[in-house]
Amino acid sequence: MSHFEESGIGEECGVFGCVAAGEWPTQLEVAQVLTLGLVALQHRGQESAGIVTSNGACPPIYTAHKGMGLVSTAFPPEALLKLRYGNLGICHTRYSTTGISELQNCQPFVVDTLHGKIAVAHNGELVNAHALRKKVMRHGVGLSTSSDSELITQLLALTPPMEELDAPDWVARIKNLMSETPTSYSLLVMFKDVIYAVRDPYGNRPLCIGRLVPISKLHTAEEEDTEGWVVSSESCSFQSIGAKYYREVLPGEIVQISKHGIKSLSVVPRPEGDLPAFCIFEYVYFARPDSIFEGQMVYTVRQRCGRQLAIEAPTDADVVSTVPESATPAALGYAQQSGLPYIEVLCKNRYVGRTFIQPNTRLRQLGVAKKFGALTDNFAGKRVVLIDDSIVRGNTISPIIKLLKEAGATEVHIRVASPPIKFPCYMGINIPTKEELIANKPEFKDIAGYIGTVQYLTVEGLLSAKDKMISSSNKSSKRVGHCTACLTGKYPVELEW
Amino acid sequence: MSHFEESGIGEECGVFGCVAAGEWPTQLEVAQVLTLGLVALQHRGQESAGIVTSNGACPPIYTAHKGMGLVSTAFPPEALLKLRYGNLGICHTRYSTTGISELQNCQPFVVDTLHGKIAVAHNGELVNAHALRKKVMRHGVGLSTSSDSELITQLLALTPPMEELDAPDWVARIKNLMSETPTSYSLLVMFKDVIYAVRDPYGNRPLCIGRLVPISKLHTAEEEDTEGWVVSSESCSFQSIGAKYYREVLPGEIVQISKHGIKSLSVVPRPEGDLPAFCIFEYVYFARPDSIFEGQMVYTVRQRCGRQLAIEAPTDADVVSTVPESATPAALGYAQQSGLPYIEVLCKNRYVGRTFIQPNTRLRQLGVAKKFGALTDNFAGKRVVLIDDSIVRGNTISPIIKLLKEAGATEVHIRVASPPIKFPCYMGINIPTKEELIANKPEFKDIAGYIGTVQYLTVEGLLSAKDKMISSSNKSSKRVGHCTACLTGKYPVELEW
Amino acid sequence: MSHFEESGIGEECGVFGCVAAGEWPTQLEVAQVLTLGLVALQHRGQESAGIVTSNGACPPIYTAHKGMGLVSTAFPPEALLKLRYGNLGICHTRYSTTGISELQNCQPFVVDTLHGKIAVAHNGELVNAHALRKKVMRHGVGLSTSSDSELITQLLALTPPMEELDAPDWVARIKNLMSETPTSYSLLVMFKDVIYAVRDPYGNRPLCIGRLVPISKLHTAEEEDTEGWVVSSESCSFQSIGAKYYREVLPGEIVQISKHGIKSLSVVPRPEGDLPAFCIFEYVYFARPDSIFEGQMVYTVRQRCGRQLAIEAPTDADVVSTVPESATPAALGYAQQSGLPYIEVLCKNRYVGRTFIQPNTRLRQLGVAKKFGALTDNFAGKRVVLIDDSIVRGNTISPIIKLLKEAGATEVHIRVASPPIKFPCYMGINIPTKEELIANKPEFKDIAGYIGTVQYLTVEGLLSAKDKMISSSNKSSKRVGHCTACLTGKYPVELEW
Amino acid sequence: MSHFEESGIGEECGVFGCVAAGEWPTQLEVAQVLTLGLVALQHRGQESAGIVTSNGACPPIYTAHKGMGLVSTAFPPEALLKLRYGNLGICHTRYSTTGISELQNCQPFVVDTLHGKIAVAHNGELVNAHALRKKVMRHGVGLSTSSDSELITQLLALTPPMEELDAPDWVARIKNLMSETPTSYSLLVMFKDVIYAVRDPYGNRPLCIGRLVPISKLHTAEEEDTEGWVVSSESCSFQSIGAKYYREVLPGEIVQISKHGIKSLSVVPRPEGDLPAFCIFEYVYFARPDSIFEGQMVYTVRQRCGRQLAIEAPTDADVVSTVPESATPAALGYAQQSGLPYIEVLCKNRYVGRTFIQPNTRLRQLGVAKKFGALTDNFAGKRVVLIDDSIVRGNTISPIIKLLKEAGATEVHIRVASPPIKFPCYMGINIPTKEELIANKPEFKDIAGYIGTVQYLTVEGLLSAKDKMISSSNKSSKRVGHCTACLTGKYPVELEW
Repeated sequence: MSHFEESGIGEECGVFGCVAAGEWPTQLEVAQVLTLGLVALQHRGQESAGIVTSNGACPPIYTAHKGMGLVSTAFPPEALLKLRYGNLGICHTRYSTTGISELQNCQPFVVDTLHGKIAVAHNGELVNAHALRKKVMRHGVGLSTSSDSELITQLLALTPPMEELDAPDWVARIKNLMSETPTSYSLLVMFKDVIYAVRDPYGNRPLCIGRLVPISKLHTAEEEDTEGWVVSSESCSFQSIGAKYYREVLPGEIVQISKHGIKSLSVVPRPEGDLPAFCIFEYVYFARPDSIFEGQMVYTVRQRCGRQLAIEAPTDADVVSTVPESATPAALGYAQQSGLPYIEVLCKNRYVGRTFIQPNTRLRQLGVAKKFGALTDNFAGKRVVLIDDSIVRGNTISPIIKLLKEAGATEVHIRVASPPIKFPCYMGINIPTKEELIANKPEFKDIAGYIGTVQYLTVEGLLSAKDKMISSSNKSSKRVGHCTACLTGKYPVELEW
Repeated sequence: MSHFEESGIGEECGVFGCVAAGEWPTQLEVAQVLTLGLVALQHRGQESAGIVTSNGACPPIYTAHKGMGLVSTAFPPEALLKLRYGNLGICHTRYSTTGISELQNCQPFVVDTLHGKIAVAHNGELVNAHALRKKVMRHGVGLSTSSDSELITQLLALTPPMEELDAPDWVARIKNLMSETPTSYSLLVMFKDVIYAVRDPYGNRPLCIGRLVPISKLHTAEEEDTEGWVVSSESCSFQSIGAKYYREVLPGEIVQISKHGIKSLSVVPRPEGDLPAFCIFEYVYFARPDSIFEGQMVYTVRQRCGRQLAIEAPTDADVVSTVPESATPAALGYAQQSGLPYIEVLCKNRYVGRTFIQPNTRLRQLGVAKKFGALTDNFAGKRVVLIDDSIVRGNTISPIIKLLKEAGATEVHIRVASPPIKFPCYMGINIPTKEELIANKPEFKDIAGYIGTVQYLTVEGLLSAKDKMISSSNKSSKRVGHCTACLTGKYPVELEW
Repeated sequence: MSHFEESGIGEECGVFGCVAAGEWPTQLEVAQVLTLGLVALQHRGQESAGIVTSNGACPPIYTAHKGMGLVSTAFPPEALLKLRYGNLGICHTRYSTTGISELQNCQPFVVDTLHGKIAVAHNGELVNAHALRKKVMRHGVGLSTSSDSELITQLLALTPPMEELDAPDWVARIKNLMSETPTSYSLLVMFKDVIYAVRDPYGNRPLCIGRLVPISKLHTAEEEDTEGWVVSSESCSFQSIGAKYYREVLPGEIVQISKHGIKSLSVVPRPEGDLPAFCIFEYVYFARPDSIFEGQMVYTVRQRCGRQLAIEAPTDADVVSTVPESATPAALGYAQQSGLPYIEVLCKNRYVGRTFIQPNTRLRQLGVAKKFGALTDNFAGKRVVLIDDSIVRGNTISPIIKLLKEAGATEVHIRVASPPIKFPCYMGINIPTKEELIANKPEFKDIAGYIGTVQYLTVEGLLSAKDKMISSSNKSSKRVGHCTACLTGKYPVELEW
Repeated sequence: MSHFEESGIGEECGVFGCVAAGEWPTQLEVAQVLTLGLVALQHRGQESAGIVTSNGACPPIYTAHKGMGLVSTAFPPEALLKLRYGNLGICHTRYSTTGISELQNCQPFVVDTLHGKIAVAHNGELVNAHALRKKVMRHGVGLSTSSDSELITQLLALTPPMEELDAPDWVARIKNLMSETPTSYSLLVMFKDVIYAVRDPYGNRPLCIGRLVPISKLHTAEEEDTEGWVVSSESCSFQSIGAKYYREVLPGEIVQISKHGIKSLSVVPRPEGDLPAFCIFEYVYFARPDSIFEGQMVYTVRQRCGRQLAIEAPTDADVVSTVPESATPAALGYAQQSGLPYIEVLCKNRYVGRTFIQPNTRLRQLGVAKKFGALTDNFAGKRVVLIDDSIVRGNTISPIIKLLKEAGATEVHIRVASPPIKFPCYMGINIPTKEELIANKPEFKDIAGYIGTVQYLTVEGLLSAKDKMISSSNKSSKRVGHCTACLTGKYPVELEW
């Protein structure tokens, strides 16, 4: 997606679900909606993808397909054909963090229980996974993967004790699960003809609901035009399937989605005094810029970060530019606030990637030159402020600085539109070890000293940029409470690792 | 493998294991021994293959690779490289019966338990699988496949209750499993540095042990030359890896295989009065002819079946021939006993198979002609006795008869070297439904009447052929007791289905 | 690459070559330089890629590898291993126009002649291909593809008559070829230890030369530091392999590249009175923005087009934006000239592409919404000037206009940074038929009228933007002479089709 | 196919063609007939396969598909769909000898000429290829492969000079080709609506014609029932598509096959005094046993070779057996003649093949044990005569002897049903170098001495076995004249290599 991903930061997953409204068998092409929804969440994980559909009958027939790689690779036409009788379904796209990159770890997980099959898709990472695994295994369950998602599935099956009743109480089981683990999870649980959408009490990972309407009536559709309901990690997926944004799933909420519509079943509270802990990096980096969180567009927040950065770290320079392309909103914000002209300095070759380079003499030294071409005429003889959205290891930004200097920039000043990352994340984000983080390395400043200056946005600046629109209308109480642990070391829950 | 497989009869699986003897890390190329062992068992399943190795350390590192298709496809060089640090390992080749053909169902299963990871490979089918699944699920375990092997793995994890002791009592767990399900299973359970080889009390599926010796000393090796121990569904695999046949695992026996050698831990008895129930079709069809069961070569038993058939069903004919190539031993036996000359009448094209034929006018009528060419000059103007090893649906033999008649045979008499299959199998063999079985169809006799005659070996004939060598030396008591349920409807255990 | 490619305009190919300087066997990793060079030209063709290397010995050993798809797919590590003994080589990346997408059509072509093997890589399309094919075939040569490149190869082999001398006169053959066909071709011909770089007399396709220097000395390298010579369709590839721009191959020039360096052998003149005819669309669309033609950066020309467009077609609007991402330089130029603020209105999902959509009811209507998300907050309630680099069929821009309107833009004015395409190209560019070109359709204006206004850059404007830097210093005579046939219908040579 | 193929002897190719009779568009599924025909010739080449069909219209539309590997792999359903409008077509299956294993070398070759496209499929090897290549290249043609088939195609295009007449005289061109090269080729040339089937004047490679009839009337069909005509390297393919054997193409004959039927156009004579030179190894090894050459079934000839061998080389032994499975006809012949009982001693594992074995310590020594299991009980304590069809390098037979001895055979006598191969073949058969041929090695006799005896069939014995049926009826003059060069060193034509 951007130079950022080379740095080793990665989101764990994206989840998406769809239930056709009205009479079944539905006319809605549920499997296709699921596929397009997944494609729109592809930036959250490119390792593998999976879809499970249910016909919703009694007993239900579940159909599953999983594959490695991008959605377009993992889902050939035959796969969609196979899934086409679904009246509802959930799906998942995966970014590999700890687990091995194998089909076996691919979600959603489907397991058979005394009450029938359930399918589970999960985004997040359980902070107390280690203890929960022990608990499940002590009960006599063998776990076939190291995935939290399998753990969640077995926890759902485990307690309360399985009664052979006709109507299993899945909501009670989900509540029990939520009492066992505080965070982080955004969860879709499909059972027969219902999807339960669940967000952990801290709201660490995003989850929102949309309404499928006739594409021709996208902006005029009434309640009765509803063709189906969708639930997604990010709202950006709604545009690409013809759905209208409906609302977020609240922290701690269990929402039931059926052909009859949306029903909020419960909101599990946080321990008294605890605030929500929505991951601040969803704003800074992970989410697609056209997604909406807490009523504001991600792009806008990033642009405000750039403006705030211009206030906090003004620069005596000639032009402002971006490391394409995730830092562009912040760079435009910086340019607007500072009054400096915005230009482009780098041309990115999208085809670079997996080309095999022998670890030998000459080409090894090329580094980012394989990926970025300098637009020399735009900046030769000028002092450049280069905006980046975040700096993790520094192994991309350092050679870019060198590239620009050699191509004729007289000064290169790095301004980072987020605070330095200093601490590990235990809630689903893959962050390098402390030793690898450039913010913890002394030499980076030296490189910077050589080339100009390096300055970061402050944590306060980031939070104010995020809340600017809100604070002005005095609704801050509801919004306060982000997880900034990777920046501040303050974790929302105590770790028992 | 033969025309038989088109008829829809199929074995479930083959299992194989290997433990390097002596000091570890071993010089023995365990992963390669496992691969070659699997290739030698390939006739027992061509759908998928899997290998799990362990370095045997504390804690152990397990490495697994699974793939669809033949061993040669599923195990590219990279896979073997990955597995190369194994000091011991188990593997499995799978024939799909009920389960869907997916990587997920591929064995061995590896699960993490409170006492560490175990790996399980299974050949057979649990007669009380349905009840056991319910039991496991009632305990709160979710099952992710419909495979008996996952069920076995979870049962092993489940009881007795998991204590957090240093030394888990896997033998107790295996015994407990055996008390829960009488048959059918030949099982390999790997834990850290040990493989437990287990055969059900009825001995329904085969399992035997071999000793790896230096290939240059294959026939002179002493005890101290032992380089490793292997365990296999069939002894035919021993020839291809340089192992000497050691002995069978007895019905109900648990054998521990470690670097220190072989140790019989226990023999779980059958209910009083019950006889062993070794599947008679291993002799008739499934096993490779160079395998040894109960001290006799499979080829020899098949040849004796042919001889017995010549006694029971003599024919006034000119020549004896075979449906290539599984019926050849019986055909040679029939020829020897009857004094009629043995000839070949059919030439088989091994490359036919998955060629795509449109379901249209002309070529659809070709049938077996795509696969078998008539060696006309050998039989034109002659009366042919054609020996087949068994007839299931009759959809291969009928057109062969037609082919031979049209090519000039004056008469074609079918003699089948096994009794008619009339009943389903619940112990791991895939047999068509009663309606599909030709033995239950009236019209087959008519076809036969048109062309000559059809006669089967009797059940008594089959059993006597099987035991000829033995009965002569009065050891019958030990040998009596085969499962002949598909021929007689007498099942070794009562079914609770 | 951009929305443009959906419209069906495509470049034919990119060519690249490399010769190691100094002693052979070289230390330079020639195969890797070729691969990286190709990756940098990937935007010129994504259908297939091929590399041929020569060890340069007598007789030479040629090694070839070709594959479908992107360079990264077509060249796995094994392929590079196979090619690693090359001391020189040429390569090609292909965009399919007329020919079928098959490996057989993949370049470079290698053929054996009386004087040994030659390898040919070609970018362009021969205007008199039809007559030349007839001529070659009349001579008795069978042609196995419809490719011009095979035709060129056979023409090179054909005349003058093949003498069995030791030193074949390839330069005479190349000159003969050039006398047979005026345009369009940029050609690399490899023979034993030499590459001939050839550009047609009209200079229709680009071709330039670079010098490989130690990466650590990229900006200080002297003549004696030269590690090799490279030749490429575009100079953007030089940055990514550590080469310095040296010069263009002139229209009509034959340059010999050997380990001893660069030698201009001849410049074949145009017919008297004819001007050069460098394809204007290399500036407008095909080339990567960091490439340099005629001494100026492509990005700069595009930006000037945007400025010129702002002068020619000013708009009463609130913001200026781009259809990402090829139109961005022009959009920034328009913003700078007009004084209107530059913003982003669309977020592009790079993962959309080959996802399979059933041609049914609902999703078919989605169109570009699958690919572009609207950044609503940036433009809601505003009048938008949307800059596009060119409009071909209009099948992308129309739904984008609709998308922006529905998302809240009060007006959407389209400004196109190039003149309308009205005529077909016979020199290597794939342009839709006249009927498909939106510039020839009346209804587009209506759509425009509905939404705002549509205005194009004039041909004069385009040419002045292209020559601004130049005309000011009165060097216009050398620069004048572009092929603008697709815009004006004035073809550089008479067509005999 | 057999152990033989490991020894490095290989046929070059198989060719097959089909023309639908009667009105076009035909109801006959020509593409499917071609595919099944190829599958039946798969034993002649497994490296690649290709089909070209023509709709036979004016101008014709040709459709081609080629792929690596077996027919079943190379022709997925989509490929057959693509080819389905063919009213006629030719196809080819290739065994790689000299050429590199690449799709580029895959036949049929299709080239465009002044008179339209021709497609060529070729089995054989031109003895004067080197001189012909020079000739073609001197004319100015570049050759893109090292394949004789491309050479043939270019020779057909080259002379006589191409006139732009409406009716090209392909027959004159084919005759001219035949005057340029004496042998070896069996050739199919497709042009528009006609296939020319051509066999070289020496008849070195086989070629025969069949008649497609309604499958239900396979043995009663009249002339007017003809649904199409087929032409094939071997008649074994006719059984599998429902065709009746019609006749051989004669040495030197050009047969035109059209929808109107079969027409012999010419028979090009051999130089005076020269005899036909049909490859004797087609009988000994290459052909499928159910094919018919010169009126006799290949199986029968092989059986007679076994009988003759028993006369020439009787053995004092207990049993006769075969190296499965190509030597079985000869082994049965030997048993019949000698009166010794025929048994099986080896069980072959068909799944062995491409399994990857590290070149290390232990398993490297396994050799044939991976592939053959000894059926010990059948021969322990007995003296075995083991019949092989031919011995090339001896690298398979030596370890088999060892295997049988170690498994308990008291003596193993090798009897080879063909004379020793001592000389190279220049007419299409891949034979190892003189040094590799075991017949030229002294040590083989020693191995044999150790284990028993080795005796070969004499050349006279082979020829008499081949002609037994014929000589008795005094038709020998027509039949005499086989190529036995690899056995005797007497080549049918003088080599100019």
